[in-house]
Amino acid sequence: MSEVTVRRKPTIRDVAVQAGVSRSTVSRVINGGHWVSPDARVAVEEAIVATGYTANHHARSLATGRAGSMAFLLTEPQQLLFDDPTFALLLRGAAEALAQRAMTLVLLVAGTPAERESVAHFISAGHVDGVLLISSHESEPLLDQLLDSGVPIVSCGVPLGHERELSTVSVEEVASAKTMVAYLQQKGYARIGMIAGPDDTPGGRYRLVGFREELGDDFDDALVEVGDYSFESGQTAMTRLLERGVDAVFAANDRMAAGAIAAVRRAGLRVPEDVAVAGFDDSGLAATHEPAITTMRQPWEQISAQMVSVLLEAIAGAEPRSVILDTELVVRESA
Amino acid sequence: MSEVTVRRKPTIRDVAVQAGVSRSTVSRVINGGHWVSPDARVAVEEAIVATGYTANHHARSLATGRAGSMAFLLTEPQQLLFDDPTFALLLRGAAEALAQRAMTLVLLVAGTPAERESVAHFISAGHVDGVLLISSHESEPLLDQLLDSGVPIVSCGVPLGHERELSTVSVEEVASAKTMVAYLQQKGYARIGMIAGPDDTPGGRYRLVGFREELGDDFDDALVEVGDYSFESGQTAMTRLLERGVDAVFAANDRMAAGAIAAVRRAGLRVPEDVAVAGFDDSGLAATHEPAITTMRQPWEQISAQMVSVLLEAIAGAEPRSVILDTELVVRESA
Repeated sequence: MSEVTVRRKPTIRDVAVQAGVSRSTVSRVINGGHWVSPDARVAVEEAIVATGYTANHHARSLATGRAGSMAFLLTEPQQLLFDDPTFALLLRGAAEALAQRAMTLVLLVAGTPAERESVAHFISAGHVDGVLLISSHESEPLLDQLLDSGVPIVSCGVPLGHERELSTVSVEEVASAKTMVAYLQQKGYARIGMIAGPDDTPGGRYRLVGFREELGDDFDDALVEVGDYSFESGQTAMTRLLERGVDAVFAANDRMAAGAIAAVRRAGLRVPEDVAVAGFDDSGLAATHEPAITTMRQPWEQISAQMVSVLLEAIAGAEPRSVILDTELVVRESA
Repeated sequence: MSEVTVRRKPTIRDVAVQAGVSRSTVSRVINGGHWVSPDARVAVEEAIVATGYTANHHARSLATGRAGSMAFLLTEPQQLLFDDPTFALLLRGAAEALAQRAMTLVLLVAGTPAERESVAHFISAGHVDGVLLISSHESEPLLDQLLDSGVPIVSCGVPLGHERELSTVSVEEVASAKTMVAYLQQKGYARIGMIAGPDDTPGGRYRLVGFREELGDDFDDALVEVGDYSFESGQTAMTRLLERGVDAVFAANDRMAAGAIAAVRRAGLRVPEDVAVAGFDDSGLAATHEPAITTMRQPWEQISAQMVSVLLEAIAGAEPRSVILDTELVVRESA
C-alpha cells in the first residue's frame, strides 16, 4: 500500500497553534482586528500565510445557493410552545424529517410585532431555504411579507384568505367534527354543546361548520361558546354552557376539553355520567388526563413529515399544493 | 405643505400584479424557472423590467456583514426543551433581550450526531452572528467545531475543559451548595445525603464540591448518589439513600428533588417530617410542587440578559470574559 497524505483544509485552530495565540484571538483578527495587540495581530497574519488558511464563511451556502435549512416558524407567543403540546409534536416530527436529510431545523418564534419584524428580515435574507409555517390566524401580517419575499412556504392548516398562494398540510376539519358529533348522538346525548375555537382559525371555523351540519335541525346557536384554545377559556365556556343545560360538549381542542372537565367538576357534576366532554387533537394530554379524553386524533407524525416533503418540492420549484389528511376517533373515558 | 411622493422598493407582489400571475410563479421564475409555462415566464420577465424589481436576497446581510441573529443552541435531546423548565426560562429571557435589539433569536437543537453535524454547518456558514450555548456536558464535540469556525460564543455555565476559550455566564456553584448545606445543618439535620448531577457537568461537579466542603468531617461518600437531572433518576437515587438512612437530601436540581420526594412518599414516609428534600434552580416547578420545594434560586432573567450582552460584546470583538452571578436560598415547605 502506498502512503497517502490527506491534506485537510487549515482551520482557525491551525492558525492559532502556528501563531501561539488563542482561537478567539485569530477570530478577532479575521473579523476586523478589534481588541488585538499589534504583536498578536502580526503573529496571526503571518500564521494565516504560513498555514494557507482561508475563511470559509458562507462557503457552503455560496457553493450551493442554499442555506441547507428550513424554518419552523411559530407565529404565536413563545409561551404557547411550552403550554400547547401540539407544537412539541410537530417540532419533533419536523426535526426527525430534516435530520434524515442532513438539513438544519431553525426554530423561529414571531409572537410579537418586534419578533415578526426581525424574523421577516432573517427569512428574507436567505438564511433558510423554506418555511414550515405553524400558525392559523387569518390576520397574520407576517404571511404577506413572507409571500412577498418569495421564500417557499408550507403552512400547517389552511391559512384563511391565502388558500391558493402556498402549499398546505391540513386535516379534514369538517368531516372530523361530523364524526365526533355522530358518535355523541349515537351514544344517546341529546343536548350537545360546542366550545369552538376562534373564528379566524380554520380549526375554529370548520370544526364548527361540521358540528352545525351534523346536528342539522337540532343545532342550537345558544349551545355554542367560543374559546381561544386555552384551558381557561374551556373552563369559562363550559360554565356558561352548564347554565343553559347540556349533556355533552365537543371542544375544538383537548386543552379546552380539559378546562371544560374542570368546570363540570367545580359544578359538582361528573364526567361522563352527568356531562360528556370530547376534544380534538390527541396531543398527549388527552391520553394522560383523568379521565382520559375521547378525541379526534390528528396524525401528527404524518403532518410534519408531509410538511417537510411538500416544502422540499416547493424549494425545488413545484407549484403550491394541498395535502389533506384523515383524523381518527379515539374513544376513551370522557365521552 | 408640498406633496411628497414616496417611492417604495418594488416587491414580488408588484411584479405579480403587473404580470397577472401569482407571487409563487414570480418566485419560481426568479429562482430558476422550474415548473413555469413559457408564457408566464415571459410575462414575469417583462414585469420585472417594467417594475424595476431587484431581488433583495441577502441584501441586508451583505450590506452589514451581519446576519442580525443569535443562535440559542441547545446541545441536548429536543425533548429536554419541554421536560426541563429551565430551558424555557432561558429562552424567554434571551428572546426578550434580542427583541429589544431588533435581532432574531434562532433556536437550534443539536441532540443527535446528525443534528450536531448540520447545526455546525449552519453556524459556520454565517447564518448567525453568535451563539448562546446552552449545554453543560464536558464531552461536547460541537464546541470544538464551533471554536474552529471562529463564531463568537457565550456559554451558560462554564464548559469543563474550555474555561478560557469562550465567554461564560454562570452562578457561584460551590458557594451556593455550601449555603444550602449550612441551612440544612442549622435546621438540625444530621445525616444529609446528596443527589449530585453528572460529574461531566459543572452543576454536577461543583455543587458536590460545595456539599463536601461544607460538611467537612461529616462528609460520608456512601450518602452521595449521582443522577442525570431527570425526575426518574432522582427517584432511583432517593430509594437507595433511604436504605442507607438519611434525614435530609440535597438534590442538584429541582426535577431530581421532585423525584426524590416521590420516592420518600412511596416508602410511606413524609416530607419534610421524616426526610427533608432540597433542590436547586427554582425553575417554576419548585414553587408549584406539592409540597413546595426549598431550593437555590438561579437568577434566570439575569443569566439570559447577561449572555446576550456578553455575546454582543464578543461579536464586536471583545476578549472572552466570565460573568458569575449569585444565587439565593428560597425556603419553602420541603426542607
